[in-house]
Amino acid sequence: MNAHSEDQTTTATRGSGYEEPATKDLDYRALFIGDQAENGAIFKELLGQLVDEHLGWRQNYMPGDRAGITIHDETTPEYGAAQVRMREVMADLSRRLRSGSVPWNSAGRYWGHMNAETLMPAILAYTYAMLWNPNNVALESSMATSKMEAEVGDDFAKLFGFDGGWGHLSADGSIANLEGLWYARSLKSIPLALAATLPETVAGKSEWELLNMSVEEILDSLKDLTPDQYDQVKAASSRSGRNLNRLGKWIVPETKHYSWVKALDIIGVGLDQMIAIPVSENYRMDIDALTSTVEELARTQTPILGLVTVVGTTEEGAVDEVDKIIALRERMRKSGLYFYIHCDAAYGGYGRSLFFDTDGRFVDYNELADLHQSHGLFSEGVTVPEDVYNGYKAISQVESVTIDPHKMGYVPYAAGGIAIRLKEMRNVISYFAPYVFEKGATAPDMLGAFTLEGSRAGATAASVWAAHRCLPLDVSGYGRLIASGIDTAHRFRDFLAELTFTVGDRVVRAYPLHNPDFNMVDWVFKADDMTSLTEVNALNEKVYDLSSYLAGHEYNNIFITSHTTFSAGDYGNSPVKFIKTLGFDEAEWESVKSVTLLRASILDPYLNSTELFNYYTTAIKAAFSARLTEVMSS
Amino acid sequence: MNAHSEDQTTTATRGSGYEEPATKDLDYRALFIGDQAENGAIFKELLGQLVDEHLGWRQNYMPGDRAGITIHDETTPEYGAAQVRMREVMADLSRRLRSGSVPWNSAGRYWGHMNAETLMPAILAYTYAMLWNPNNVALESSMATSKMEAEVGDDFAKLFGFDGGWGHLSADGSIANLEGLWYARSLKSIPLALAATLPETVAGKSEWELLNMSVEEILDSLKDLTPDQYDQVKAASSRSGRNLNRLGKWIVPETKHYSWVKALDIIGVGLDQMIAIPVSENYRMDIDALTSTVEELARTQTPILGLVTVVGTTEEGAVDEVDKIIALRERMRKSGLYFYIHCDAAYGGYGRSLFFDTDGRFVDYNELADLHQSHGLFSEGVTVPEDVYNGYKAISQVESVTIDPHKMGYVPYAAGGIAIRLKEMRNVISYFAPYVFEKGATAPDMLGAFTLEGSRAGATAASVWAAHRCLPLDVSGYGRLIASGIDTAHRFRDFLAELTFTVGDRVVRAYPLHNPDFNMVDWVFKADDMTSLTEVNALNEKVYDLSSYLAGHEYNNIFITSHTTFSAGDYGNSPVKFIKTLGFDEAEWESVKSVTLLRASILDPYLNSTELFNYYTTAIKAAFSARLTEVMSS
Repeated sequence: MNAHSEDQTTTATRGSGYEEPATKDLDYRALFIGDQAENGAIFKELLGQLVDEHLGWRQNYMPGDRAGITIHDETTPEYGAAQVRMREVMADLSRRLRSGSVPWNSAGRYWGHMNAETLMPAILAYTYAMLWNPNNVALESSMATSKMEAEVGDDFAKLFGFDGGWGHLSADGSIANLEGLWYARSLKSIPLALAATLPETVAGKSEWELLNMSVEEILDSLKDLTPDQYDQVKAASSRSGRNLNRLGKWIVPETKHYSWVKALDIIGVGLDQMIAIPVSENYRMDIDALTSTVEELARTQTPILGLVTVVGTTEEGAVDEVDKIIALRERMRKSGLYFYIHCDAAYGGYGRSLFFDTDGRFVDYNELADLHQSHGLFSEGVTVPEDVYNGYKAISQVESVTIDPHKMGYVPYAAGGIAIRLKEMRNVISYFAPYVFEKGATAPDMLGAFTLEGSRAGATAASVWAAHRCLPLDVSGYGRLIASGIDTAHRFRDFLAELTFTVGDRVVRAYPLHNPDFNMVDWVFKADDMTSLTEVNALNEKVYDLSSYLAGHEYNNIFITSHTTFSAGDYGNSPVKFIKTLGFDEAEWESVKSVTLLRASILDPYLNSTELFNYYTTAIKAAFSARLTEVMSS
Repeated sequence: MNAHSEDQTTTATRGSGYEEPATKDLDYRALFIGDQAENGAIFKELLGQLVDEHLGWRQNYMPGDRAGITIHDETTPEYGAAQVRMREVMADLSRRLRSGSVPWNSAGRYWGHMNAETLMPAILAYTYAMLWNPNNVALESSMATSKMEAEVGDDFAKLFGFDGGWGHLSADGSIANLEGLWYARSLKSIPLALAATLPETVAGKSEWELLNMSVEEILDSLKDLTPDQYDQVKAASSRSGRNLNRLGKWIVPETKHYSWVKALDIIGVGLDQMIAIPVSENYRMDIDALTSTVEELARTQTPILGLVTVVGTTEEGAVDEVDKIIALRERMRKSGLYFYIHCDAAYGGYGRSLFFDTDGRFVDYNELADLHQSHGLFSEGVTVPEDVYNGYKAISQVESVTIDPHKMGYVPYAAGGIAIRLKEMRNVISYFAPYVFEKGATAPDMLGAFTLEGSRAGATAASVWAAHRCLPLDVSGYGRLIASGIDTAHRFRDFLAELTFTVGDRVVRAYPLHNPDFNMVDWVFKADDMTSLTEVNALNEKVYDLSSYLAGHEYNNIFITSHTTFSAGDYGNSPVKFIKTLGFDEAEWESVKSVTLLRASILDPYLNSTELFNYYTTAIKAAFSARLTEVMSS
């Protein structure tokens, strides 16, 4: 998982050699601008240096040439007017951003969406690369950043244990999910296309068998085709528009993230083919329910196009038991049923760094606690549960994974990503554009031929690349950074569980949702005398209103959070266990069918300091108290 | 088309008031860093100022709070090691970008892809906004930049003459094209969904009539539905996966940009439904061929899902006669056939600025030359032809348009965009995600509910917004900037047409393709003694190899270009007229079926200075001569 730049020279030169660091456990706090701009000086120093290096490059490309802008040009009223307008617009921009931004950088007052400040090297790299404006659609327009993207893609493949895999950056997680579904749909349609165009290649197979070939078998069946045959088969695949209704069901968790609903719509398979599996009381896909659904589909010979498993749900941070899903697939495979699996790890993907040692080895569970201890990852008593470890480990056996660098990669928007288990899969979806691709060129890849988008910012690749080179995707790098948020989540949960407020003559308590799989904590406030869930929901809605952009004073707000709603439509009865802890019975759930929670995704890189945690929890306890008083007395 | 920031105050204050400029014709050259970093000083000044303003904001959010990073923390080996690693990575980044970037900023040596340096205010705004990292998926995470995107969307709608229209930014043109197709597919499927779910609303209509309702009629039929009925109809629309094969044909130009092939695949309609219309000798969609195809489809009652018309083809810069396509649609409509039209103006869209005066009025053609003269747009003899004007004008009657700010908007990658003629269209494709959307909130829009992507960088919106506020989308702003490239294209074409080289005892001439509709010039070199097109193609391939990244020394290259190939598969016999100017007959075309051209998209903001044009054409004439000698003597 270490950094490897291409064409390294044997002599260490400024700019290509990375020295062995004094310690592998880099203090990631040095890589942020800082909640109070503590590292502002080094940020400005490096930014200034990079900008100067760029300006020098411009000056020294053909330095003998006549300049595009003469000294005289700069003295005209039109030139001056343009400069004045630019200053006016920049002043307006500054006013609007300063008055309309959320202090995600705060060390202890922002407890909301999956946002924090982003890594300084990622910001610097984006800014620097943007000065050249590379376009990663093709190598021709991005010689430097296409290579960086190829390296990032390799990082992703390694992170998920995909030997022979491949990855690239995408616009965001929704596009990566759509691309995953595009892969599944295209691959599933290939056997039918073979049967229609080259029937001898799949002779003797029934339609059921054709629709249950594994991805390996499908790729294998294409291996010996001539280029013309390959094109002919692809032309008869789902890209033709044929057979979309025959490819089978697409299985998602009942909490279905809206990106999946949208993706099924766009890809043409359609929402009629969606099957939603309930989630369990811990908000993971319910394996028993999944098993009986899959068995029923097998019994009725209804094909399954694929399944989405989620590592890091956006509302609860839950990690699916991917290993059990893989085991189910292996078992069904023996009886002739096979389905594609896409892992939506947009949020949780980087968490797999927790399990690699600094030699790039995915460690066994029984070594994990020692490894974490030796790198100082967690406080006393905090560990990664074995089921979460097993879920992460099994990602290596899915076909494709979404991972968002702009979430747990701590890089600026917009940076999504996808990795596939077998690089050859991409040949099934590829296209070429004559003006941007040299068909002969091979290394690095001509990315636009294999991505859902066309033009993409090379600056994004530079940004993610710089982040990965500063923080390795192992326990010493991203592992430590992500562990910090998980550790704080556990402490925050414990802090909430103890909270009691007195508001007038009423007592209010906080109820955290459950033991976090990842770095997210949901909770509700409830007054002891509240007898209806509706009343509790109203209280928490009001707290949210005052603790969010809706309050209209985000910069001065002393506590900011987000919220979510678990309704029966998306969650079935999964929330019953939780609302029982609030003292409500199942009948109350049946009557209200919805619970509103406050929601904190904790990416904060500072709060694993006990002093700081205590300072801020004292401060926000006071903020909670003031807010509850404001809400309950109104 | 002027800048309007929201909540303007009545008193002029620093940051919100824009003064009337000394002259409306701003010198756009003051808005670029400069080919030789001529404006490097003001860039650094403004960048430094903005960074300081951001750092101050971080320091002053709850300034009494305990800092996340203590002075002591900064003294540890782990902290120092992280800083060293960051410096190493930045040095590596700098080396790689300086050695692997293309000098698009050059005033006269880069004649290739649709790239130039980008607008300084756009770079500054991107960088500044990125420090806060807003996410335009929802207002909650981007209070400032969501508003900017809404303003940019309004700019697009106005630019295309869509009263009551709407627009937004997308990842790139491919995604915007896919979204346009998503609109077309979803809308076309609504009447069938109405017939299936609420048959009384479309009583008496035949399937042919249902599939030929106009977009206005479709929206009208949804107007009086209850929310539940609306959801029910949408659930039965194409998002269900039903009826995709019944929606009809999708018409594209035969030169079909690969993004359209990919979009038809992804959207599930499929390439079987694609009908390719030949292009004429001037590389626009052939209206006669289109007419007979459409009439044939009407005769056989084959529905037409929609049609793509292109304003600014990527290989030739051709502008379709959109007016004639609209006229055809109006004529067919009377006989009961209707089809959706998407205009792919990814490349040419900003060119519509040429036709707006500074009062925001789209001027009549007979006023155009005077308007252009009064703002100093073109050299003597260069005008916008009436057919190009008419093509641009008629965009106001299509349903949706792709426009890429990262092309002729001169902003950094990745910034695509789309505009729709009727804002209500978006309700047909919308989705909601519970955790990011406040269903009650209305202004500005919750963009993620109406876009193909989910998370999107607010920095992109800030970037495009700043560019539009500095350069109005009218003749005084973008009009002047884009005219500069068009003017240079005409001069470059004339320059090429005169070029003759003596290489040994052979004479080589340049042959420009045709009179440019926009800012693109294609050409080939040919030695007088060459008797086969294959030989000519080989010569130009070799010139390209030495004048591109393939030569391996892009920074030191004295001339850089791109190339394209017109093959019979994509172009039919359109190139015959051109190859006849080279002295070849139709038989030669029939035998080779392909011609390789060098290709220059001219976005250069400097070369409309005659002195500079003469300097650089002298320089590149020498470069051509050297290159031809190198190629022809090898």
